[in-house]
Amino acid sequence: MARVVVDVMPKQEILDPQGQAVANALPRLGFQGVSEVRQGKRFELEVGDDVDDATLDKIAETFLANTVIEDWSVRRIES
Amino acid sequence: MARVVVDVMPKQEILDPQGQAVANALPRLGFQGVSEVRQGKRFELEVGDDVDDATLDKIAETFLANTVIEDWSVRRIES
Repeated sequence: MARVVVDVMPKQEILDPQGQAVANALPRLGFQGVSEVRQGKRFELEVGDDVDDATLDKIAETFLANTVIEDWSVRRIES
Repeated sequence: MARVVVDVMPKQEILDPQGQAVANALPRLGFQGVSEVRQGKRFELEVGDDVDDATLDKIAETFLANTVIEDWSVRRIES
């Protein structure tokens, strides 16, 4: 078994209302110095040893991310 | 400026319906071998150099994560 992390983030040119809401709230809560926040998703997968990188990329690209508005990356953190 | 990543994941003992939905859908879509999926959040923050680690921890703990049901981690990826 291997543990795989897939990060899915809104593309840089896409507005990110959730992230902006966080960024706007921080000064009101007393936290200064945070100029930008972007919010995305993180998936942790337990995969069998027979699942290759090409399959993981395909899962991320076709299923976990919406590639019109999101970038994704896959990495194995343990095997 | 530094770039900071905050990962927020459901605690291991917490049910994760979003992750389970993904895990259940994968075999139907033709992807075998993924035994568990957990879905959390990833935040990317641009912070000023005067923001210290204790402040970042406080932002993550009090504001980005719900510590009743979620674990969080903070790391700087660039400075």
